[in-house]
Amino acid sequence: MDTSEMYARGLRRRKRMFGEADVENRMTASGEFGAPLQNIINAYVYGDVWERKGLADDIRSLVMLGITAASNRPAEFRVHAKGALANGCTKQQVQDVLLLVAMYCGVPAAIETNRIASEVFAESAASSGA
Amino acid sequence: MDTSEMYARGLRRRKRMFGEADVENRMTASGEFGAPLQNIINAYVYGDVWERKGLADDIRSLVMLGITAASNRPAEFRVHAKGALANGCTKQQVQDVLLLVAMYCGVPAAIETNRIASEVFAESAASSGA
Amino acid sequence: MDTSEMYARGLRRRKRMFGEADVENRMTASGEFGAPLQNIINAYVYGDVWERKGLADDIRSLVMLGITAASNRPAEFRVHAKGALANGCTKQQVQDVLLLVAMYCGVPAAIETNRIASEVFAESAASSGA
Amino acid sequence: MDTSEMYARGLRRRKRMFGEADVENRMTASGEFGAPLQNIINAYVYGDVWERKGLADDIRSLVMLGITAASNRPAEFRVHAKGALANGCTKQQVQDVLLLVAMYCGVPAAIETNRIASEVFAESAASSGA
Amino acid sequence: MDTSEMYARGLRRRKRMFGEADVENRMTASGEFGAPLQNIINAYVYGDVWERKGLADDIRSLVMLGITAASNRPAEFRVHAKGALANGCTKQQVQDVLLLVAMYCGVPAAIETNRIASEVFAESAASSGA
Amino acid sequence: MDTSEMYARGLRRRKRMFGEADVENRMTASGEFGAPLQNIINAYVYGDVWERKGLADDIRSLVMLGITAASNRPAEFRVHAKGALANGCTKQQVQDVLLLVAMYCGVPAAIETNRIASEVFAESAASSGA
Repeated sequence: MDTSEMYARGLRRRKRMFGEADVENRMTASGEFGAPLQNIINAYVYGDVWERKGLADDIRSLVMLGITAASNRPAEFRVHAKGALANGCTKQQVQDVLLLVAMYCGVPAAIETNRIASEVFAESAASSGA
Repeated sequence: MDTSEMYARGLRRRKRMFGEADVENRMTASGEFGAPLQNIINAYVYGDVWERKGLADDIRSLVMLGITAASNRPAEFRVHAKGALANGCTKQQVQDVLLLVAMYCGVPAAIETNRIASEVFAESAASSGA
Repeated sequence: MDTSEMYARGLRRRKRMFGEADVENRMTASGEFGAPLQNIINAYVYGDVWERKGLADDIRSLVMLGITAASNRPAEFRVHAKGALANGCTKQQVQDVLLLVAMYCGVPAAIETNRIASEVFAESAASSGA
Repeated sequence: MDTSEMYARGLRRRKRMFGEADVENRMTASGEFGAPLQNIINAYVYGDVWERKGLADDIRSLVMLGITAASNRPAEFRVHAKGALANGCTKQQVQDVLLLVAMYCGVPAAIETNRIASEVFAESAASSGA
Repeated sequence: MDTSEMYARGLRRRKRMFGEADVENRMTASGEFGAPLQNIINAYVYGDVWERKGLADDIRSLVMLGITAASNRPAEFRVHAKGALANGCTKQQVQDVLLLVAMYCGVPAAIETNRIASEVFAESAASSGA
Repeated sequence: MDTSEMYARGLRRRKRMFGEADVENRMTASGEFGAPLQNIINAYVYGDVWERKGLADDIRSLVMLGITAASNRPAEFRVHAKGALANGCTKQQVQDVLLLVAMYCGVPAAIETNRIASEVFAESAASSGA
């Protein structure tokens, strides 16, 4: 497959999961210096790996929360907590992922991601008028 | 709940997932020195966190593969790759988890866990006469 | 032992080490979503592991500073730097722990935790009128 | 060699790479509590390891960007991004280091350090009137 | 660019750096299960990122040694120590990278990678009849 | 102080803690390539940081067990488990450190270091005729 097709396909998926405006802002902010990295993210990460059929989107999002929490990446955990909501994950599922994080990565990792997940849920409830 | 009940419940679950003989051997090997840690594992990890209802067992196993791969714990990844098979995960699901690991934790983490997963699948096929 | 007893015992210890108001605030902030994690922290971490008799409280606090610095958890390091003062550790002991961190985890880990420890000592001196 | 000579030599190098005012401020801020760590940094890190002849300064800076990005140390990455400019590294070299980080440590590590590098380049362009 | 071209280009580069037989063996061993990961490695890592022009190959190899040492990936460090020799790096350059690792990641990371580098140098000397 | 004095002082301490033969073997094995790293270890780590007066040797050893377990360095943990015995630490103290590791770094870190500590205790009992 041509990488420009993968790029377009991945960018569409990113916008669907994280919101068109947010993704546009991130890409503008990354500028010329960040363009090759944005290519990796759009074409290889979202245009290839996220397009695979082995996992349903909600399960993939739950795995992503485990991965980003375990690798000490709170900013990326926040992005994927929003993505998890967009992919239909429930609060209870996220809660159970974070209790695995507590026992397998230690409570500090769980405390930080618990706080972030709570903030993401509150913002989501506010923006949906819930 | 009493912790001795949690312990018994967790030990039953561990044996169901990883095999009675394997779990008995691990517990014997850990000896008196390891008894308090085995209490944490049986009562708190398997008797509490794994007994929660927010995640189906197969999804929890897939999240565990992401967590143990992301936190650079190959021995524990091997244990949970076996558990994933016992919990009904497919090879294609495991494959897709490891491609997330490649892109979000880097290819070295994916190379090592890919090799381990292949070995676990081969052992499983051999022992089931497949 | 019943887990509700462990929970109560652990919560008492947390408040003694970190201050009643601080712990109440943290627990309120964690809300319903964070309740299962607070149960792990109160019952299993403080109600079980911190109640063990193998280590004196000040030594346990010094080990905690090494663990949280080594695992790149600055927010948790700050919490345990306060706990270390409450448990009677001296500035010189903390300093020597952080020099081990410098040589065994690298200078960036030591620079960050040195700064945090200095802030905690200054706050403590201010609040005690020292 | 006497450690006080190594200290003086290392401090000169630090000031040359990071600016006299910045280094003075950092050392004042670290105070009496941080003095032994500043000794390690000046004498052992800059007075010994950075004075070795095996690597040219610009190459050493590029390696440092890889090391600090890979070990999840964004504050230290920022310091060494400034040092890399002082040592004559180009934007394109830094970009290529960060694409290695993306593939070998995962995209979250690259996203964060890309943003920091962009900020450092912008500050440098502003202060040089470029 | 088409990904199959990137794949072919990356595979040629891998074989040049690590030896044709070694790369063939690795790819055969990874089997059908590992094929999508081998695609990432050949097409995206070696066919894209390693083909960029911002860094000379020897500098890229030195950065790789820093990255794999810093991220606690000894098996991958060994692979790239061989690649560093193929790309013309000297023992003294590798030595100086590992002293940076000692000071910025801690001595345990340096001890392990020092041992591996020594083994790779000895194998290389033996196979070249040196 | 002159670094050659620090080196001699540190080497004496290392031999006292880890045994003369073991340290000689390690230093011979590290060869010419490893000499600058051995200088860092002898002069800076053992000749400076371990010679400081802020911590008693047994407490420093317990902190070291926490640091090496938390930073995923099992080979170094084994070395310092031996050092902890030489410095008079008890099994119960080591056990309590590892339970902190379980809760603050996750159970996989504790399982691996528990196994190593058990082996070190068994070897020690065997060699002392206990």
